[in-house]
Amino acid sequence: MLALKASQLGIPVAILSENQHDPAAQVTSLWTQGKTTHPETLRSFLLSCSLVTFESEFMDANLLEQMATDTKTPIYPRPAHMGIIQDRLSQKELLNNYNLPTSPFVAVHDEDSARAAFAKFMGRVVFKKRRFGYDGYGTFVVKNQKDLKAFLHELQQDQYGFIGEQFIPFRRELAVMVARSKKGSAMCLPFVETHQANSRCLWVKGPLKSSTSLKRLSQKLCRFVSELEYTGIMGVELFDTGREILINELAPRVHNSAHYSMNALSDDQFTLHLKAVLGCELQPPRLLSPGFAMMNLLGDSQESPKWTLSPEIHFHWYGKQENRKGRKMGHINALGKTPDEALKLARKHRKDFKL
Amino acid sequence: MLALKASQLGIPVAILSENQHDPAAQVTSLWTQGKTTHPETLRSFLLSCSLVTFESEFMDANLLEQMATDTKTPIYPRPAHMGIIQDRLSQKELLNNYNLPTSPFVAVHDEDSARAAFAKFMGRVVFKKRRFGYDGYGTFVVKNQKDLKAFLHELQQDQYGFIGEQFIPFRRELAVMVARSKKGSAMCLPFVETHQANSRCLWVKGPLKSSTSLKRLSQKLCRFVSELEYTGIMGVELFDTGREILINELAPRVHNSAHYSMNALSDDQFTLHLKAVLGCELQPPRLLSPGFAMMNLLGDSQESPKWTLSPEIHFHWYGKQENRKGRKMGHINALGKTPDEALKLARKHRKDFKL
Repeated sequence: MLALKASQLGIPVAILSENQHDPAAQVTSLWTQGKTTHPETLRSFLLSCSLVTFESEFMDANLLEQMATDTKTPIYPRPAHMGIIQDRLSQKELLNNYNLPTSPFVAVHDEDSARAAFAKFMGRVVFKKRRFGYDGYGTFVVKNQKDLKAFLHELQQDQYGFIGEQFIPFRRELAVMVARSKKGSAMCLPFVETHQANSRCLWVKGPLKSSTSLKRLSQKLCRFVSELEYTGIMGVELFDTGREILINELAPRVHNSAHYSMNALSDDQFTLHLKAVLGCELQPPRLLSPGFAMMNLLGDSQESPKWTLSPEIHFHWYGKQENRKGRKMGHINALGKTPDEALKLARKHRKDFKL
Repeated sequence: MLALKASQLGIPVAILSENQHDPAAQVTSLWTQGKTTHPETLRSFLLSCSLVTFESEFMDANLLEQMATDTKTPIYPRPAHMGIIQDRLSQKELLNNYNLPTSPFVAVHDEDSARAAFAKFMGRVVFKKRRFGYDGYGTFVVKNQKDLKAFLHELQQDQYGFIGEQFIPFRRELAVMVARSKKGSAMCLPFVETHQANSRCLWVKGPLKSSTSLKRLSQKLCRFVSELEYTGIMGVELFDTGREILINELAPRVHNSAHYSMNALSDDQFTLHLKAVLGCELQPPRLLSPGFAMMNLLGDSQESPKWTLSPEIHFHWYGKQENRKGRKMGHINALGKTPDEALKLARKHRKDFKL
């Protein structure tokens, strides 16, 4: 999606990926086969580009930083920021350092520290792998001794360590995007509600009604990315406990929770990210409908998907090669007079898709 | 732009074009080099596709028709319709056959028929090349003996013939898109005002205020594409004389006058064309702003273009290899409370681009 929007802005896009059937590899004539862990591949790819960005934060940040310096090709967001955020421990410390609200946590690396976390948080802990976790992978909710035992077994086989967070009994989950341009201007997109099932995002609706606490959080996030001199867009996942809003996770990239922006905002998240890394002035885009919803199209089999397109929804398909149960294969966006009306429409048309 | 929108809908796009720097060749991994006039190239390209469409009507319609039959790969709009519309004489006859309002005309093939047209239309004629005319190329406005003499000189060197139309002193030029799905549903997009300088479109603004005559024309156009069993989107250029609205020209494809739709409508013309040729149900898209404007970015030199991006406008660049005076290199879209407000914004930001 980022590559398509870049092409629309007249930016020739080169893609480095491992497989020629990767979604982004299909939409450019400039595809390079290779691994981002291979220094020489990375070096020659960077030398062929004037600016580089990424859609996954699970890369070797040190190697990227080194190569960006060697080749003088800027990488935005900066690999140093990717490195801090890709490790849940340093991400949590970052949030604390900038006085951003987040749940209490401790580092966990062995049985003793895991038991200490269990005690500290009154037997209700969420253990998360420090690295490579996503969509619930690498996350363990521990609420009793049996859970703890299962987790300790997992911990033995681990190489990156965990964090243990206080379990937050949230009322609902929210999300917001914050962006900062290389030129300095920072802004947030609308706050949305997200709904997860099996730790995987099913739908998003919005915008949330404006409130003092959301406004304050939005200001804090803008100050955060400004002080950090972050360049690009960042996804922020939130817990709404009913009493306060806590930051659950950061992602230094475009984010699934903001795919609604492709049809509900005058500038979508991909275009905004590109403007940010190119150093254009940023302004919050116009909302094109009083309500909107995004519903993920999750794989449900290994057969070929089938669908019909209704004029009531906007359809986005990712071109992933293999259909798999639970895999994000695409999404639909709907507009409506309220977030709930839009969600109703999205739900109704979800049935048109056999995945 | 069509290829980008197809990718967004999960449709793998193969492109047949002559040069690897052609805009569409840059945004796919499936580019074939070749000429559409070459039967074997065309045959193997068609065999590699499940459905084919086009962005230029200046092709050999008979050859396309033959190849579509041979390979059983459907081409939409059907080459037969392309063939009728690409020849201004048969296009005019088509309009007459369907009782669509257009200026009086005669066929012109030699000096005698040219002089007869000049006499018939009281010395005010527009001669248009029957084939391959666009953006004013192949159009000769003849209002006196001197103009006529110059045209007769041109006529001698011509191989396709001309039509002679009565000169229409229009108050303004308008445009509208009509689309019909393979499934049968037909619809029109909003009417817009277009402004030409040197026969080249400079800007478009809209939507036009609804009126009985526009509604009636829109119904006529829907009936027209339905009876013709046309499949896809069609551009319709209009003269508004103040007393009546006449059809100036048809184009069997997406059209420059509807690029505003990329930011002002809930479905853009490219997506609608794709839905039409794929046989989805069509409904008029939602208008996302009470006013909108599109301004073409026309080349003004052979140097590299330069620009800054303002958050007030939407920018679309075509990736054409060579900058040339008057060449359409991209466009900007603006939204506003009225068409004029949007146009003012587009004009203001036109200055940000040095082409």
